[in-house]
Amino acid sequence: MPNNIQTPRSLTIGEEMHALMGRLFPICRSITGNGVRETLKIISELIPLTVHEVPSGTECFDWIVPDEWNIDDAYILTPDGKKIANFKENNLHVVGYSAPFDGEMNLDELSDHIHTAPDIPEAIPYVTSYYQRRWGFCLSHKQFQSLKQGTYRAVIDASLEPGSLTYGDLLLPGDSNEEILLSCNTCHPSLANNELSGPVLLTYLARWLLSLPERRYSYRIVFMPETIGSLVYLSQHLDDLKNNVIAGYHLTCIGGPADFIFIKPRAKGTLSEKAMHHTLAHCSIGFSIEDYTRRASDERQFCAPGIDLPVGVLTKSKFAAYREYHSSLDDLEFVKPSYLEASFSVFQSCLEAIEMNWRFSVTQLGEPNLGRRGLYPTIGGQAYRMQSINDQKAVLAFSDGEHDLIDIADKHGRPVKDIATAAETLVKADLLSRLL
Amino acid sequence: MPNNIQTPRSLTIGEEMHALMGRLFPICRSITGNGVRETLKIISELIPLTVHEVPSGTECFDWIVPDEWNIDDAYILTPDGKKIANFKENNLHVVGYSAPFDGEMNLDELSDHIHTAPDIPEAIPYVTSYYQRRWGFCLSHKQFQSLKQGTYRAVIDASLEPGSLTYGDLLLPGDSNEEILLSCNTCHPSLANNELSGPVLLTYLARWLLSLPERRYSYRIVFMPETIGSLVYLSQHLDDLKNNVIAGYHLTCIGGPADFIFIKPRAKGTLSEKAMHHTLAHCSIGFSIEDYTRRASDERQFCAPGIDLPVGVLTKSKFAAYREYHSSLDDLEFVKPSYLEASFSVFQSCLEAIEMNWRFSVTQLGEPNLGRRGLYPTIGGQAYRMQSINDQKAVLAFSDGEHDLIDIADKHGRPVKDIATAAETLVKADLLSRLL
Amino acid sequence: MPNNIQTPRSLTIGEEMHALMGRLFPICRSITGNGVRETLKIISELIPLTVHEVPSGTECFDWIVPDEWNIDDAYILTPDGKKIANFKENNLHVVGYSAPFDGEMNLDELSDHIHTAPDIPEAIPYVTSYYQRRWGFCLSHKQFQSLKQGTYRAVIDASLEPGSLTYGDLLLPGDSNEEILLSCNTCHPSLANNELSGPVLLTYLARWLLSLPERRYSYRIVFMPETIGSLVYLSQHLDDLKNNVIAGYHLTCIGGPADFIFIKPRAKGTLSEKAMHHTLAHCSIGFSIEDYTRRASDERQFCAPGIDLPVGVLTKSKFAAYREYHSSLDDLEFVKPSYLEASFSVFQSCLEAIEMNWRFSVTQLGEPNLGRRGLYPTIGGQAYRMQSINDQKAVLAFSDGEHDLIDIADKHGRPVKDIATAAETLVKADLLSRLL
Repeated sequence: MPNNIQTPRSLTIGEEMHALMGRLFPICRSITGNGVRETLKIISELIPLTVHEVPSGTECFDWIVPDEWNIDDAYILTPDGKKIANFKENNLHVVGYSAPFDGEMNLDELSDHIHTAPDIPEAIPYVTSYYQRRWGFCLSHKQFQSLKQGTYRAVIDASLEPGSLTYGDLLLPGDSNEEILLSCNTCHPSLANNELSGPVLLTYLARWLLSLPERRYSYRIVFMPETIGSLVYLSQHLDDLKNNVIAGYHLTCIGGPADFIFIKPRAKGTLSEKAMHHTLAHCSIGFSIEDYTRRASDERQFCAPGIDLPVGVLTKSKFAAYREYHSSLDDLEFVKPSYLEASFSVFQSCLEAIEMNWRFSVTQLGEPNLGRRGLYPTIGGQAYRMQSINDQKAVLAFSDGEHDLIDIADKHGRPVKDIATAAETLVKADLLSRLL
Repeated sequence: MPNNIQTPRSLTIGEEMHALMGRLFPICRSITGNGVRETLKIISELIPLTVHEVPSGTECFDWIVPDEWNIDDAYILTPDGKKIANFKENNLHVVGYSAPFDGEMNLDELSDHIHTAPDIPEAIPYVTSYYQRRWGFCLSHKQFQSLKQGTYRAVIDASLEPGSLTYGDLLLPGDSNEEILLSCNTCHPSLANNELSGPVLLTYLARWLLSLPERRYSYRIVFMPETIGSLVYLSQHLDDLKNNVIAGYHLTCIGGPADFIFIKPRAKGTLSEKAMHHTLAHCSIGFSIEDYTRRASDERQFCAPGIDLPVGVLTKSKFAAYREYHSSLDDLEFVKPSYLEASFSVFQSCLEAIEMNWRFSVTQLGEPNLGRRGLYPTIGGQAYRMQSINDQKAVLAFSDGEHDLIDIADKHGRPVKDIATAAETLVKADLLSRLL
Repeated sequence: MPNNIQTPRSLTIGEEMHALMGRLFPICRSITGNGVRETLKIISELIPLTVHEVPSGTECFDWIVPDEWNIDDAYILTPDGKKIANFKENNLHVVGYSAPFDGEMNLDELSDHIHTAPDIPEAIPYVTSYYQRRWGFCLSHKQFQSLKQGTYRAVIDASLEPGSLTYGDLLLPGDSNEEILLSCNTCHPSLANNELSGPVLLTYLARWLLSLPERRYSYRIVFMPETIGSLVYLSQHLDDLKNNVIAGYHLTCIGGPADFIFIKPRAKGTLSEKAMHHTLAHCSIGFSIEDYTRRASDERQFCAPGIDLPVGVLTKSKFAAYREYHSSLDDLEFVKPSYLEASFSVFQSCLEAIEMNWRFSVTQLGEPNLGRRGLYPTIGGQAYRMQSINDQKAVLAFSDGEHDLIDIADKHGRPVKDIATAAETLVKADLLSRLL
């Protein structure tokens, strides 16, 4: 084969996720509006999402769904007629939920409506004003400093009117009514790690879950705006969630270069924490586990007193902990396919760990005779170090009805996958029976 | 203003305490006697103490109140007629509870009645013999070694007769019958850290407690001799103490130069320990926490099996852990106003922490809308790091009816005072309700 | 006394144990057979063992007692008529449970029946085939490599026929029906640390227990083959064991040069663990405590789910953790009298700790007046550091009916022996009463 011809190859799953991110990136999303609808429509090409509309004015706990915001254009005309802060070039230029405006003013007056991030002077910051009507633009600090005196015209061609909040969900039934909750946010405009990494990853996790021949647990997959969206969702599904959810993860800031950080649910001893901690301990990327006091995203709603769902957050470049956070630097270059793929792989392993995490009890008192079942060498005396046999013995030694497979794996420093394989072998040999 | 004129200023509280210590220092106290009465009388000028007399012979658990000891004078006349070991110069010269005596003897015979501390040769040691009649003198080892052969006369003009044991107490009622117990000892003669630091500090803490416009808890403040005094007090008030005391501190050795050491009550998980540990963690002086196995003073009675009161001990230059301990070196120079003031400040903060340590529950499911109540910026997107907002969110996140404010403060590494301010704001905004 | 005459002296207990090991070492033991009988007969000269025979074919849980194996001779004749792999020189040369055989073959065919240990080329490895009929020889790798082509004759003069499995036990009654279980294995041929150290040490521990004027607990002492023996024993005595055994130790690999390793029982918070950990902490040899995940010998049966006996294992040169393990290098040189004596001493202290580990309650509220009972100096003021007094105060401070003497000793970093002496003094003074 000649050198200059590349072997065609299919995309890696990381590349596929990154390509989807590329499609979603330019869309101007907010907590309501057509940008969210368009986003969910594209995702619906990949997974059978149900899209819900919740009218403005709907009460959800202490909050009210606000008017819907849509925007067609926004820019500033400089004294010499140049168009800057052009929404069509970068939707971060306009303050999210800006009220419509068209007017002239001098630079001093305009400055009151301009936001910059002096510590990252080349970047456009991300600013919103959801619950108080104002208008504004975001500029790089560098550009802002270059503005000259004169008369400026600011134009925001937006609408802020009764409409609805849009979210999507998907319920994948499993053998049990017990549910795993997976959620992400769809309210950020052109920002990659925070937030498109969440929806993109969740879309592909849902595809994988859909592809499974059987699922032990049911899966509840939710795409919604941050805070108001999770409050809407919780207020509409609280009883179901409290009755059924046994573990959950909110996916956010999960596509950056940093090590993994897992923020534990507020409740102690959750399956969410156990399964994720186990998974991270056997993954090749560094990680740390943080207490719920380090909470930041929608886990604040899921774990609030009285709601008390066992929802944790895994991040890879955590909110507010990276320089590019909430600025135009959080772009498609910041998130790489390999980061998304690493995160996908961790969630896949974690959900597999949950699915395979049964408890068993032995069927025999004492260690069974593995040798006559072909499970143990019939020659004795020398130290055997076959891992599969050790795994079987580990399962037998701790299958007392109390320890589950993750417990047994953790005690022996082994991946639960291998421990589950050992358990399966022993079940086939009638030496172990699965507990319900 | 000319250089040589000092601006007059009032005393710091440390200086006031040190001045009181200066008044009390010369008095010869013991476990009974007029020295104790005089001490309590001086303290009564500052706080409304009730003084109690318990007759010699009174049984208290395994003990009996001994005869009362009073002393007018004591000294040794040397062969050349010099008066040494003069009680009127330093009351440590006479062994506490020495029986009356007047007799002549040679140096050898006298030596059997003389106590020195060879490892601190310049210091007069502190020695007592409460429950066995003997007489004796304490000399610096240096002076003892300079004594020449010859006939000595030893005079102890004391009385040891049925009388009574004297203690003082003060009950400050609060909104609740639940009590905080604060105690100290009044049985040491001219010794500053161990023991006048205790009564002096407790006097000023009581003054501060008296000055408060309201108190959540009742306070039981006790001045008493060590061991026999606490046993008397316990035997007379055991039911009340067991029913009402929810936290307590015994104040002893609390005025020296060393770091703080807190000796935990024997019981686990006490409020005494939680509040003091929290307070020390936010104080600028080093500290350590010791187990009850390091017990030494009246906590041995308060925490004894069957009594089981949650009483801990805070020290600053702990008993037996400083060179000057139980000797004439433990004087008004050893204890400095600034040390007393630091200890006052820790106890004040600790008692404030206990007073403000309520539990709350949220009134809304999910995080409330702080923005519309003016409690949160209406502009979003940039990381806000306002501590007061974070404190409010901390309170909301953990006000599940189980965590109290110290728990919440400890989880977030914050002083409970600030967390309590946040809680107050939230109560005013109807977002939090206090639990009883 | 002239220089060249040695004072005669009796053997140390370590030397006695080593001498017994020397008698037992040449015997060819296996999981059944006359070697076990002979071993138990020799031990019966020292302690009144009851010997039991369990017929081949008896079911015990998942296992069946195999045919009995006896062997008279085994060897290989080389092409030049030399006798090698001579069973009579070293019984490790024959694979344990080898079927009878007599036949000629070339070196290639013979090699399929020869086992060596290439990583210790000078040593004969120890190999068995209990549950599958095969025959084989063990040679040093060095010798094996020197074999030349030609016709060899292999002779195994053994029998493998229905018979019985032999074990011995001894029940020493105590004041209580509660039992301490002590067990060891008798199935290894000429191997010293693993396994003769166990039976030899257990024999002398039993002699010491027999010599005690009284025993608080009953002792169940068992000599049996590994795995099949413990399964037989458990299947025959399970109810008794579950009802009565409150602590237990399996003695194996307890005579080597390494530090002690204690493998904890599977259950948490056992007396076995508490007493042994305490004992090791006050012994002069290094030690480590391992989790049950590091299990290896018959504790695997005793602690199996559903059996759940609190049996731990103390080792000194742990199985598979020393180079000489399961080879001819594990010989009478590897185990030294001083190692056996150190192990004896630890077990003796540990069993004494269990025997003296009572709980008490105080008879007085508050600290009692020790001075008037002559238990405390009547002169006060100077810091007393008399350990016996501190021990008494420790016992008084924690005798609340919950803490036992090992708890109190551990809290104060003291040996339980001294704490028990203090408790005895206090009981005599009517200050403490023993709880049942």
